[in-house]
Amino acid sequence: MVIVQKFGGTSVGDLDRIQNVANRVSQTVKAGNKVIVVVSAMSGETNKLVGYTEHFGDNPERAEVDMVLSSGERVTAALLAIALNQMGHKASSMTGRRAGIITDDAHTKARIERIETEAMQAALDEGKILVIAGFQGVNEAGLVTTLGRGGSDLSAVAVAGAVKADLCEIYTDVDGIYTTDPRIEPTAKKLDKISYDEMLELASLGAKVLQNRSVELAKKLNVSLVTRSSFSDAEGTLITKEENIMEKPLVSGIALDRNQARIALEGVVNRPGIASDIFGALATSNVNVDMIIQTSGHDGSTNMDFTVPQNELNDAKAVVESFCQKNEIKDASYNESICKVSIVGVGMKSHTGVAAKAFSTMATENINIQMISTSEIKVSMVIDEKYAELAVRSLHNAYELDK
Amino acid sequence: MVIVQKFGGTSVGDLDRIQNVANRVSQTVKAGNKVIVVVSAMSGETNKLVGYTEHFGDNPERAEVDMVLSSGERVTAALLAIALNQMGHKASSMTGRRAGIITDDAHTKARIERIETEAMQAALDEGKILVIAGFQGVNEAGLVTTLGRGGSDLSAVAVAGAVKADLCEIYTDVDGIYTTDPRIEPTAKKLDKISYDEMLELASLGAKVLQNRSVELAKKLNVSLVTRSSFSDAEGTLITKEENIMEKPLVSGIALDRNQARIALEGVVNRPGIASDIFGALATSNVNVDMIIQTSGHDGSTNMDFTVPQNELNDAKAVVESFCQKNEIKDASYNESICKVSIVGVGMKSHTGVAAKAFSTMATENINIQMISTSEIKVSMVIDEKYAELAVRSLHNAYELDK
Repeated sequence: MVIVQKFGGTSVGDLDRIQNVANRVSQTVKAGNKVIVVVSAMSGETNKLVGYTEHFGDNPERAEVDMVLSSGERVTAALLAIALNQMGHKASSMTGRRAGIITDDAHTKARIERIETEAMQAALDEGKILVIAGFQGVNEAGLVTTLGRGGSDLSAVAVAGAVKADLCEIYTDVDGIYTTDPRIEPTAKKLDKISYDEMLELASLGAKVLQNRSVELAKKLNVSLVTRSSFSDAEGTLITKEENIMEKPLVSGIALDRNQARIALEGVVNRPGIASDIFGALATSNVNVDMIIQTSGHDGSTNMDFTVPQNELNDAKAVVESFCQKNEIKDASYNESICKVSIVGVGMKSHTGVAAKAFSTMATENINIQMISTSEIKVSMVIDEKYAELAVRSLHNAYELDK
Repeated sequence: MVIVQKFGGTSVGDLDRIQNVANRVSQTVKAGNKVIVVVSAMSGETNKLVGYTEHFGDNPERAEVDMVLSSGERVTAALLAIALNQMGHKASSMTGRRAGIITDDAHTKARIERIETEAMQAALDEGKILVIAGFQGVNEAGLVTTLGRGGSDLSAVAVAGAVKADLCEIYTDVDGIYTTDPRIEPTAKKLDKISYDEMLELASLGAKVLQNRSVELAKKLNVSLVTRSSFSDAEGTLITKEENIMEKPLVSGIALDRNQARIALEGVVNRPGIASDIFGALATSNVNVDMIIQTSGHDGSTNMDFTVPQNELNDAKAVVESFCQKNEIKDASYNESICKVSIVGVGMKSHTGVAAKAFSTMATENINIQMISTSEIKVSMVIDEKYAELAVRSLHNAYELDK
């Protein structure tokens, strides 16, 4: 098999950990696989370098910032190659440039445009282990670019897609994706398999492991991902396309999102285009609106309820206040003491009653559901934040996720 | 003027010092010059990285070592470019690759083969300040190489030669070349100008400032060098070709070399080829023989005296012992309590009596001269090490170098 193994900052956090990574790569190679390793900078290194670039004033030249930031991964990649060579393997490090990772010009948050695989393929054909510096590429002009937060995962997924690897393993300090946050529900179980779409909906459960950007890219490139721990031999969680999952569980996991705020507008004049006015303005201000509910009031006016991320609430407020003034809206209220609980599972598509069970579970616990939204594979409920843990635990129990 | 300014590790040792460097570069630009800056890694950084590469075992893959080591200069270069941009200048950092510095394949001690100046020239024509990562280049295959100790100076000199710069300023924590070591003779004066050849002979005086490799390259490329301090505005010392120095001083400086050991062979059979035997064998063992004196003994045999660097004495001993056994030589003695004092000056070429004054000065101080060697611009004497400071001070005084 051709396997891409990606190791994050904590996994290569010091020289001994780099040696541990070398041991793991060595095992994978000795088991008969061809291995491409993608590494992050040693933990703390990138933050240190970011601090350096911000020392001289605001808005440092972003091309230069990329030159600084990209150095951390180069060092880790070469050190891992050194460790592997010392163990008797043939290993070569590659910068983003050498690995053929071509990006657009958006320094510090570049997007991978294509990967020229010739150099990687030639090295693989020579029987070498490749160690690629993650998080970086070059633009068409040959200048170094970086991919932004979670960039090394993107490098790994993109490389896996480009060389048609059989598997892309993402190693972190967490051993996989759980049915829910184990700090809330200790009986949470690690999932063996999960589909891309479920993973995207369960983002909060994988937040420490994978960014949605990487899952989306894996889905697009049809790369099977495994997230697992670099500190244990435990099997991780396979994230793959739905067709690869034989037993489709009704519910795969319960996600909790505390970063939610609810905005309620009462007495909105119900004229055509009014929704477009407010949500268009919010989009222009880069506020991500999540759930939207519109209900008719008694006087022919309408009520609008929607949620935004808490950290975008201030931006949202500015838009809403101005909208209210213009449209003579009586009352706008803001509530940050809410959370969103979601039940996710591909099995919902072909089964009825999943949502009903969620609602009845809430009722049994006397939890008032403030908002509901559903998709093919998800039921989300907005509730009072104080019930967050109770809701997660009782739903986890109701769907028997501990079994 | 086009000026290359090179700043060493202590000059860019932290972020505030990088800001100081930016201020100095800014002044030079505002004075109407085009500036190319060459920087080392922040002091301590390269040693840290070397330590990393040696963690995993002996003989780390040298191409990988270069990948690790070259990162320090990249960071400094980009940070300095950021600082200059924040000050309103247009500055771009360049790696060795981007600056077109092409080397041979000798990783960790590569030699610069040529410099492709197109990219530098284009950026200069756009009015940009260039900040080049020193110490590094790429080989023909495009792999990063480093130039070994003193490599950033070499980068600066080579770049200055390639773009035909008017001046190459080497900034360190020392403000120039002195007539002798000021710790020995407090009246030592800073030299305004000195020729390449004098500088090469005075290597010990410039040891903290410039390696001979860089001076030799400057001489070859006809690059006028200035060594000066990055921590003061004091004028430094200009190192240039002899023709550029109008008043040729009789003596420019007094150098002291304590790293000397003397080997004396008595009763050597005086047959043709005997000198070639011993010195050929020493050369094969990479021992650098400095001064050689051969004198006839009373019995038709010959005595051979020569000096080697103290840190090569053990290697030399092995060669000498084997030579003595083969040639039935009675007596070989080794003396490490010696030193070499040298008087250097281009003016000697056209003046007599310079050497005589040195000898009479030694006589006045009752210092026995053990060996003498002379060149066109130098008189060297081997004396007992305990007289080292006295000899330097009295010679400095005799040639009136404090005037």
